[in-house]
Amino acid sequence: MTMNRRILLAKRPVGLAAQTDFRSDEQPIPEIREGEALLKTLYLGIDPTIRTWLSTAKSYLPPIEIGEVVRSAGVCRVIESKCERFKVGDLVTHLCGWQEYSVCTEDSFATLFPASTNPRHTLGPLGSTGVAAYAGLLYVGRPKEGETVLVSAAAGATGSLVGQIAKIKGCRAVGIAGSDEKCRHVVENLGFDACINYKDDGFREALKKACPNRIDVYFDNVGGWILNEALGRLNMGARVALCGAISVYNEPKKPPGPANYLNLITVRGKMQGFNGMDHWGKHAEISADIAKWMEEGKIRVDETILEGLDEAWRSVNMLFTGENIGKLLVYVADGVTEP
Amino acid sequence: MTMNRRILLAKRPVGLAAQTDFRSDEQPIPEIREGEALLKTLYLGIDPTIRTWLSTAKSYLPPIEIGEVVRSAGVCRVIESKCERFKVGDLVTHLCGWQEYSVCTEDSFATLFPASTNPRHTLGPLGSTGVAAYAGLLYVGRPKEGETVLVSAAAGATGSLVGQIAKIKGCRAVGIAGSDEKCRHVVENLGFDACINYKDDGFREALKKACPNRIDVYFDNVGGWILNEALGRLNMGARVALCGAISVYNEPKKPPGPANYLNLITVRGKMQGFNGMDHWGKHAEISADIAKWMEEGKIRVDETILEGLDEAWRSVNMLFTGENIGKLLVYVADGVTEP
Repeated sequence: MTMNRRILLAKRPVGLAAQTDFRSDEQPIPEIREGEALLKTLYLGIDPTIRTWLSTAKSYLPPIEIGEVVRSAGVCRVIESKCERFKVGDLVTHLCGWQEYSVCTEDSFATLFPASTNPRHTLGPLGSTGVAAYAGLLYVGRPKEGETVLVSAAAGATGSLVGQIAKIKGCRAVGIAGSDEKCRHVVENLGFDACINYKDDGFREALKKACPNRIDVYFDNVGGWILNEALGRLNMGARVALCGAISVYNEPKKPPGPANYLNLITVRGKMQGFNGMDHWGKHAEISADIAKWMEEGKIRVDETILEGLDEAWRSVNMLFTGENIGKLLVYVADGVTEP
Repeated sequence: MTMNRRILLAKRPVGLAAQTDFRSDEQPIPEIREGEALLKTLYLGIDPTIRTWLSTAKSYLPPIEIGEVVRSAGVCRVIESKCERFKVGDLVTHLCGWQEYSVCTEDSFATLFPASTNPRHTLGPLGSTGVAAYAGLLYVGRPKEGETVLVSAAAGATGSLVGQIAKIKGCRAVGIAGSDEKCRHVVENLGFDACINYKDDGFREALKKACPNRIDVYFDNVGGWILNEALGRLNMGARVALCGAISVYNEPKKPPGPANYLNLITVRGKMQGFNGMDHWGKHAEISADIAKWMEEGKIRVDETILEGLDEAWRSVNMLFTGENIGKLLVYVADGVTEP
């Protein structure tokens, strides 16, 4: 095999992505030069941020251009190397894109993991998802023991970690999710104290009941009316950590913001945006903590895995239609030394 | 004179206040008991927060009940005392309400000023207005030298202090106000670097031009679409200090929130509500700084003064129609030892 199959952006999706918004091609596998390494993609990590990059919306990275390989995190195995930093067999996460092969240089933003690490975990709890959940909750939200932590998209990759870490820190963890099945999972398998199905009537009452002492930390993955309701139920001195706004990314026009932001004045609250990437300097420390908690059985990791590059476009939609539980991954290939 | 004239809330205003929303009465001047002092009102301080208290909206204090004296800050002279804390002749600010006489007890939330202080300044730069401006800017906004500080209602009591303190701290100070006259005043007399008339067309372009390096600190007094525009022009790591939302208080229904709150994620920004009262423990230190700056001619104080209790209802509207420049006061009576 000497070809590299790639998925390119053909046109910008409106609302949910369609298969025709993408096209695939095959290019020769890149020949690497001095200072470069060739990587084979094992899994793609599908994050809501990809949907933002598919649009022209302002984000922390520029939009993906039409005709470009779709930008995406992935975990790869080094299969050829002409540089010091990467050795054949190394397990590496980087923005490899939706393609079978990619190239890293000495100074690429890429992270090496011990070759024996479960590759899927390098994209989830031991990778950027873990850093976003940990840093957003503990550095931005700063919950104290006994406080109430609310998190939306609680059955998702980030939300499920946030609630489980909140429990480890002695907080009351309350989730919000989109089905009774997910809510049951969040409480029974992930150990949250409560979880609210936001598709049920009476959300406000349910929130009140689940957060009898109001909300001290709200970790927001969804934006929209749920953020507004959470802002209306904050405790004095509450912190809102803005991780994302998945309810908004598919909207062609920005929906109105949360009218209850005014409550921040009443409760002297704080709403702060963050990006897990800014805390990447703490990755080693954070992933060591999370790995320990996983070993101790305090953190359970769920995954939803799609098979093959051609499923990648569909996977992005699943984040918005709520079909996944836990980390959403696309399987691309076996690693040379994959465990 | 043995009677106390009072202004009571007759019914809750809808939109701007009407004279018929209030009624006046006369009651005997209260007889004080042991541990109490009788105070004569000199000036009332008219703050936007009064409009909130006139409604049933959630605030840091409960609504004013129908039939109650309208709650309001004021500066008073002690004219009779049966307690240790207050001596006859003392100058005191407290929530005296819209009436000629009030009573303080040993444990009232009240602040004593040297008898020689300009009584009007105890409600403005040396009182709660000064603390709100100083604490909101320096403790919440935390501007660094060379950064851009934007403040709305820049010709108002709080905004005018915020911009002048920002200049003292070496920042670029940009104001927003509601007339060309006010904008000229803000630049020419208060020393801001620029001021934008929000009633002109092309606000976004004007904001861009006035803040070429984007906004590092936005001190928000108005809310609404101006807050939204400011959120759209934040710099990386920007701080939004929420002091109030004067564009909203008169609205019977809460208008939509700022859709651009999402930009807080992109710039890793922070939006934080505060109340000057929470920083009252620093009042001595803050008012000493401001008094010094006033003496040095670095801070100019403007006042708009209405004459007599019967004008109080009208004064509240002036905050919303933008008729005042600087601190809005209602003159009630001469102090016994007023300078």
